[in-house]
Amino acid sequence: MNAPDTQPAAIEWIEGGGVTTPGGFVAGGAYAQIKTYGEDPRMDVGLLAATGPCTVAGVFTRNAVTGEPVTWDRRVLAASRPMRGLVCNSGNANTVTGDQGTRDCARMAEIAAEVLGVSSEEILVASTGVIGRQMPMDRLERGIRAIALSPAGGALFTRAIMTTDTREKSCAVRVEAAGRTYHVGGCAKGSGMIHPDMGTMFAFMTTDAPAERAWLDATLRAVTDRTFNMVDVDMDTSTSDTALLFASGAAGGDPLSAAHPAAAALTAAIEAVATRLARAIAGDGEGATALLEVVAEGAATPEDARAAARTITSSPLIKTMITGRDPNWGRVMMAAGRSGASFDQRAASVWIGDHCVLDHGQPTGVDLRLVSAAMAGEEVRLRVHLGAGPATATAWGCNMTSEYVSINADYTT
Amino acid sequence: MNAPDTQPAAIEWIEGGGVTTPGGFVAGGAYAQIKTYGEDPRMDVGLLAATGPCTVAGVFTRNAVTGEPVTWDRRVLAASRPMRGLVCNSGNANTVTGDQGTRDCARMAEIAAEVLGVSSEEILVASTGVIGRQMPMDRLERGIRAIALSPAGGALFTRAIMTTDTREKSCAVRVEAAGRTYHVGGCAKGSGMIHPDMGTMFAFMTTDAPAERAWLDATLRAVTDRTFNMVDVDMDTSTSDTALLFASGAAGGDPLSAAHPAAAALTAAIEAVATRLARAIAGDGEGATALLEVVAEGAATPEDARAAARTITSSPLIKTMITGRDPNWGRVMMAAGRSGASFDQRAASVWIGDHCVLDHGQPTGVDLRLVSAAMAGEEVRLRVHLGAGPATATAWGCNMTSEYVSINADYTT
Repeated sequence: MNAPDTQPAAIEWIEGGGVTTPGGFVAGGAYAQIKTYGEDPRMDVGLLAATGPCTVAGVFTRNAVTGEPVTWDRRVLAASRPMRGLVCNSGNANTVTGDQGTRDCARMAEIAAEVLGVSSEEILVASTGVIGRQMPMDRLERGIRAIALSPAGGALFTRAIMTTDTREKSCAVRVEAAGRTYHVGGCAKGSGMIHPDMGTMFAFMTTDAPAERAWLDATLRAVTDRTFNMVDVDMDTSTSDTALLFASGAAGGDPLSAAHPAAAALTAAIEAVATRLARAIAGDGEGATALLEVVAEGAATPEDARAAARTITSSPLIKTMITGRDPNWGRVMMAAGRSGASFDQRAASVWIGDHCVLDHGQPTGVDLRLVSAAMAGEEVRLRVHLGAGPATATAWGCNMTSEYVSINADYTT
Repeated sequence: MNAPDTQPAAIEWIEGGGVTTPGGFVAGGAYAQIKTYGEDPRMDVGLLAATGPCTVAGVFTRNAVTGEPVTWDRRVLAASRPMRGLVCNSGNANTVTGDQGTRDCARMAEIAAEVLGVSSEEILVASTGVIGRQMPMDRLERGIRAIALSPAGGALFTRAIMTTDTREKSCAVRVEAAGRTYHVGGCAKGSGMIHPDMGTMFAFMTTDAPAERAWLDATLRAVTDRTFNMVDVDMDTSTSDTALLFASGAAGGDPLSAAHPAAAALTAAIEAVATRLARAIAGDGEGATALLEVVAEGAATPEDARAAARTITSSPLIKTMITGRDPNWGRVMMAAGRSGASFDQRAASVWIGDHCVLDHGQPTGVDLRLVSAAMAGEEVRLRVHLGAGPATATAWGCNMTSEYVSINADYTT
């Protein structure tokens, strides 16, 4: 992954960094044969462990149907006790699996707890894969017990949660604040437009900062709303989407809270990691060849700005227009118009790349061949100004190619 | 178009019927060279005229960005005066065209009014096609003036509004009620998944019943909510979607109102025509090979039922699963879960065709090869019971094939 161009000065990217870059974490992955693609075995179980008690915040899918692990995680996090680890698998989502699924999820936490010598109530669980199939518990257990944990194991853990992601998604930063050095690391797997049965987004982040639970919760929620929740790869919301942020405290000092002098710097570091993971997820959609960044400005409210940016990003007609390098800016207005954002079409302006194609409701007559040429890169930027207020939001997505449909249609259970 | 299997007894389908089947209407179409596909000229201007003053109800797109004709029609209909005709073109939507577009739309009504010898305030306008291009007014005017109107011209009018529709969509019924014979006819062009620049849905219906404007408005709105508004071909809402219902009164008798003894029969006849047109639009999506019918039952409220049915119908993962004949019913739960409908996943059941795959939250273990075989037809039916109440809704859509993406991506302005 390439670093974005601009970062706040205090934040430094760490080459090859990930979830075990911050102190206090070990991780690993193994093969449980839950997920196989032809002859090629894939790593499909992973374990991330804190070497001591750890504060954890979680944000989960808004889908009314949720996987068993989401139900489990919400329950154990509600108790606000320190946590010790996270066990993951890919290949089976343990979702809509009835009473058997509930028992299997609890057993999965128990196996990880036995391996780590802790209580199962201190273990979080994340599963992604097919919905409606029972988990192969024997293979799962053998796999988890085969994991070797190490401070260098973040890369293996990242591979274990991948499904049809074409690139590993992990990164880490160092930030100096209030006289101390902190680290934030993270890894993710793609959401939507990925394999149809594995459309889940996982984003797991770690920091060695100590943190109060309330601050960690609020920070993760705010950062998620500006990053992971602004990724629209397709419009389907997985039943298992999970973002977790673990704070080990290995960096020492007072726990982070809103009043802590390092709070703003840590928030910026967490947002930098989350933004990079979100952009990586958007750019790695199944069949995608371009990252799409959509900026909605001039909205009456932040909610309107978010709605306009997300609706444009997720529109099939926008996504296919990027593939065809077709500067068909009417579609941008169509999508903004159906987003629910309030605005007057006679006050709106639209840019493709740096080209203004609509200026306060009047077509500019710019040479569309130039605009088409500006759509040829690996990253395409659309901007709309609604002329209705001061609010701005950015969303990320990708183009749609025939390969998306082939992959999703040619699959048979 | 084939007639649906069951109809209320009093409603009789008329072979080859359309908008000029009811008395009091003439229509026609012509070539204005607004729309050309290679060497092949297509009919692209149409005129539907009432032979006398006519009551008209309209329902329009909910998109905040609207074409100039939508703005025009809303204004002239607000005056509640009798109307005399409808002028249409395909190939150019006259949308986001600035002040020039406003003038051109008024001029288009004026030309039609001159042809019919009426006032332009008695003329409705509908345009579908590219967004953001100025209308070629000279060609448009020559085209409109070349139209020959006749009582047999409904078929030409239907062709003039087609864009990449593969089939003409028109039908008509006869209904006997309260001692009198009434007719209802209609034609439509496809919505979404049609050519990217021509994703508009038009549905124009006529009846020879006389009608009070308030009853006609309420009836069209209610019928549209159960028919055209339940078609989800893709999730993009056109800026020009228009449904109009013209009542000429040629059948004689008292004007229809809620208290009229024929009101229920006429409503049923209008809904029969609208349902048939809605199903035809759904089944003729670009690249589609199957009609998808989704029934959501057991919802807490009618709004929940509608949301669940529509969300399942429009999900890309559902649409591609139909193409692959993949009985991946977890996606049905995923889509219902993100629809906003409230329900408990442990109370929900799912059917694919006649096969129950999830029973009160427990997978049934039915042989998925049998289920896959049931997905092979030209019409696939999905049913979900939310276990949350008494409400039911039906939505229609189509599968998604690679051809959809090719058509939408390979196009360049």
